[in-house]
Amino acid sequence: MNNYRLLIQYDGSRYKGWQRLGNGENTIQGKIESVLSEMLGKEVEIIGSSRTDAGVHAFAQVANFKTEKDFAPAEVKAYLNRYLPEDISVVEVTSVPDRFHARYNAKAKTYLYKIWNEEHPHPFMRKYSMHLTEKLDVAKMKEAGQYFVGTHDFTAFSNAKSKKKSSVREIYSVEVFEEDDFIQIRVRGEGFLYNMVRKLAGTLIEAGLGAIAPSSIPGILESKERVQTGRMAEAGGLHLENIEF
Amino acid sequence: MNNYRLLIQYDGSRYKGWQRLGNGENTIQGKIESVLSEMLGKEVEIIGSSRTDAGVHAFAQVANFKTEKDFAPAEVKAYLNRYLPEDISVVEVTSVPDRFHARYNAKAKTYLYKIWNEEHPHPFMRKYSMHLTEKLDVAKMKEAGQYFVGTHDFTAFSNAKSKKKSSVREIYSVEVFEEDDFIQIRVRGEGFLYNMVRKLAGTLIEAGLGAIAPSSIPGILESKERVQTGRMAEAGGLHLENIEF
Repeated sequence: MNNYRLLIQYDGSRYKGWQRLGNGENTIQGKIESVLSEMLGKEVEIIGSSRTDAGVHAFAQVANFKTEKDFAPAEVKAYLNRYLPEDISVVEVTSVPDRFHARYNAKAKTYLYKIWNEEHPHPFMRKYSMHLTEKLDVAKMKEAGQYFVGTHDFTAFSNAKSKKKSSVREIYSVEVFEEDDFIQIRVRGEGFLYNMVRKLAGTLIEAGLGAIAPSSIPGILESKERVQTGRMAEAGGLHLENIEF
Repeated sequence: MNNYRLLIQYDGSRYKGWQRLGNGENTIQGKIESVLSEMLGKEVEIIGSSRTDAGVHAFAQVANFKTEKDFAPAEVKAYLNRYLPEDISVVEVTSVPDRFHARYNAKAKTYLYKIWNEEHPHPFMRKYSMHLTEKLDVAKMKEAGQYFVGTHDFTAFSNAKSKKKSSVREIYSVEVFEEDDFIQIRVRGEGFLYNMVRKLAGTLIEAGLGAIAPSSIPGILESKERVQTGRMAEAGGLHLENIEF
């Protein structure tokens, strides 16, 4: 059995997220599986490290798949890049030990959220950032971000469907900084609940606008009452930036 | 009479270029004029510094228009950004002396061409760069570029329709360099003929691929025989970068 590890970039704008859905819906996993299945002559499942939401982008998604067929990693890469649409790119393919599992072995994930905070829109980044004209107070956002660091029950910051699974997660760091004229939020953690990073970013934005006090965040966490979806930052600004194993 | 100067950015992907055409064709000039005409309550013509081709982008197009109405520049900017589509952005509006003319007063124009020279595609830059998998020899491209510098008859590097107008232009500089993982070509000149920058970039690419020798360029210029359209680099890689007055 061969196990291949893929490093993948994608523009998520026109996809319903990473995870394959029924009914032939347009997903990134579905696209890659369909090309790989053509190559291998049989159906294959790929495992992604992170199930990115509809419209979310990836600089570095990691996935793996197993097959009895022998292909050089370079052949797999070339085949995928030849037949995948141009908004999905396979940057690297490597052979890995049989035990490697892209989801179970992921130790930390980093997401980056980009905000364009000018009056005029950014024509080239309009799909890759959130455009906010009202000025953000970055110091307030930094302050708010620190309340998320550590191990918390993130029920209030999720839209997870299952109530059986634990909503406790550890966040290792939240950085808010200005770079390349964008206000950026980088969140690194062991893993995230459904919509969690977007709700977290949306809450930092509210703090930056003065709509909520940073110090109110511990209370929101403790309440376990879901924050309104209106407080969820739009998908286009979010990028899966890195997976650590 | 008030004269307003606009600094404009646009993603040219879905437009038939800058210049307004008949039949309600989708052009950047047409879009801006239609929003301005709404604001002013009467038809208005804007003059652009550079008539970018279909699919070509602008980091810094300059335009001007005149009106008897009195608006603060900030009002003009806010109105345009409110009603223009998100792929056209008005970065700056200023009041200028009556004699300012965006086309006649332009002393130099700079275009930037971006090439992504990797096996895998670049999902986020696919509309803003040309993807070439065959490796380019940048030294050869630099060498080729120098043959264009100076005053030449560029008939061979144009698709200009009129044969009455002069095809002599001065190019001040051609730089070929690697930055942000892209191979980039920056051309600065007094002005350019129709399709000239794309043909020039396409020829540098051919030199980089070893398909032509850099030293063959003076002969091509002298021949005044139009180079094949196949040698024209695709529109998406080209950006109007700067106008000097």
